[in-house]
Amino acid sequence: MNVTIIGLGLIGGSVARACAEQKLMVSSWDPNPDTRAAARAWGIPVAESREAAVEHADLVVVATPLVAMEQTFQWLAQCAPPQAVITDVGSVKEPVIAHAVAHGVGDRFVAGHPMAGAESSGFDAASSSLFRGATWAVTPLPLTQVDRVLVVARFVMGVLGARVMFLTPDIHDAGVALVSHVPHVLAHELRGVVGQDRHGRVAQALAAGSFRDMTRVARGDAVRNAAMVWENRDQVSRVLDVMIADFTDLRRVLGSASDQGDVEAFFTRGGTVSESDRAHATLTVTQDTPVSVLTALGELGHLVVALTDVDDQPGHGAHLTFAAHHGVS
Amino acid sequence: MNVTIIGLGLIGGSVARACAEQKLMVSSWDPNPDTRAAARAWGIPVAESREAAVEHADLVVVATPLVAMEQTFQWLAQCAPPQAVITDVGSVKEPVIAHAVAHGVGDRFVAGHPMAGAESSGFDAASSSLFRGATWAVTPLPLTQVDRVLVVARFVMGVLGARVMFLTPDIHDAGVALVSHVPHVLAHELRGVVGQDRHGRVAQALAAGSFRDMTRVARGDAVRNAAMVWENRDQVSRVLDVMIADFTDLRRVLGSASDQGDVEAFFTRGGTVSESDRAHATLTVTQDTPVSVLTALGELGHLVVALTDVDDQPGHGAHLTFAAHHGVS
Repeated sequence: MNVTIIGLGLIGGSVARACAEQKLMVSSWDPNPDTRAAARAWGIPVAESREAAVEHADLVVVATPLVAMEQTFQWLAQCAPPQAVITDVGSVKEPVIAHAVAHGVGDRFVAGHPMAGAESSGFDAASSSLFRGATWAVTPLPLTQVDRVLVVARFVMGVLGARVMFLTPDIHDAGVALVSHVPHVLAHELRGVVGQDRHGRVAQALAAGSFRDMTRVARGDAVRNAAMVWENRDQVSRVLDVMIADFTDLRRVLGSASDQGDVEAFFTRGGTVSESDRAHATLTVTQDTPVSVLTALGELGHLVVALTDVDDQPGHGAHLTFAAHHGVS
Repeated sequence: MNVTIIGLGLIGGSVARACAEQKLMVSSWDPNPDTRAAARAWGIPVAESREAAVEHADLVVVATPLVAMEQTFQWLAQCAPPQAVITDVGSVKEPVIAHAVAHGVGDRFVAGHPMAGAESSGFDAASSSLFRGATWAVTPLPLTQVDRVLVVARFVMGVLGARVMFLTPDIHDAGVALVSHVPHVLAHELRGVVGQDRHGRVAQALAAGSFRDMTRVARGDAVRNAAMVWENRDQVSRVLDVMIADFTDLRRVLGSASDQGDVEAFFTRGGTVSESDRAHATLTVTQDTPVSVLTALGELGHLVVALTDVDDQPGHGAHLTFAAHHGVS
């Protein structure tokens, strides 16, 4: 299989390194000549132009920043072979899919999002093992052909070592607002408040593990973080509304003649978030399996932890083994 | 020096283990017989009663939960030798000091707070190295005799390996609201919102490092966390007011016809919180040095990183070497 990677930053670079290590036939492109040189020096095949990069692609991985994706779909519609499956790694799915559909590659597009990252960015920070054991959301549309979905799942699991969670784009965007985008907002806010407080310097000298951990993601690229929150603004707003109401309630309790018991209610309410608890189920997927079956399992919190090809049985595609993942650990 | 530790949980137990490892003469007490047995099995001397524990104390370390401190000061006023210095490890200082003063031990009390902890609690989770390299806030009152302050500083630095930051109680409470208490509120809120959201299960399956790090402190003792927020409610409220206003602004930007640039302003504002940057200064402290000199250095973000006794020079107490700590790393 020929894999083409467009964009060789932390995510795209990590995908490219994993492909290169496994001698998968690969081609790549990045608009930055320094990045292209760094990738070549590392042994990644980089094409002479972005058009040449996708010429023979069976799978195109779009790993550009969110703001560049629309323009990337525009030229992929002209240059990518019609049979090539296109996927991406953007942290928000509904607007990215809308761009793909608008530019006429929606039928070939199976959107994805690896739940992995780092504070550092760029090709130099990339690692072939970045996705090993990570969850990789795949968000096909109801009419997406299941064999195209399996192309992405096989690549993500087999080459990158991640586990796949099939989700509808809207449920994905709601979920990542909760566990990624809003946490980024909180981290930046905490860092911003300390930076601007008159006791900020004292506070930083007192800071221990909890503050370090809670502001870690705010040491990443602020513009990139702003972009993902902006692209997912409806879902982030929904969560922020809940938080503003909760903080206002807590503020009232702290300022009133209440007692500690009312504060405890705020602190113990998260008790339903429990640690890991897994149950396995297997699904045999044929070319007639509706994508909605896969995304329904994802909505129940199930991850694909194993994928076995059953191509020798006519009409069969793969056994997918799902595990329910209920934990936060 | 005879050290008595009252309360053998994570913090008190860690102090006791460090003392025992260094063969410091120690006595201790915990109201829980199982804890007393566990401490004895570990080689910590535990007295037959709390009165016997403090009988020969030069330094009493009160390491009970915040809610038990008032009652502890009450009996220490009756049982502790008048010359013994009393310190504590509570995470909020103004109310604890008020209790000590109200029960007549204010002149002997030098309040403290180690900026170290763990999700787990109790004597079994204690470690003699818990405080090594940590910042330990010491918050004397203006009239506190500086030689009593040095007793605590020598113990914290020499026996426990921490660095001391002298602060007034109010500045301490403002600082820990920013870097500890409010982060605990954010972590519990994030965990609570995910636990109660209709997409919470999907979100947890998608959760990666950022969510894990940001909810880590919420896996600790919720009642203890509620108690420290309640005891520091004025300072926590002050920070929450800022955050509610900031989140409301961000929510307005996300819901309006603004563009990504307005969101970037929110994300880049924490830029003044920078990484470490140290400058050293030395202060020679005699018995006439006002405590306000020490706390003024603390307010500038300075930590005591070295303490050299100069008892051979009459009237001199110690050289304190301060380092300015401007970083969050």
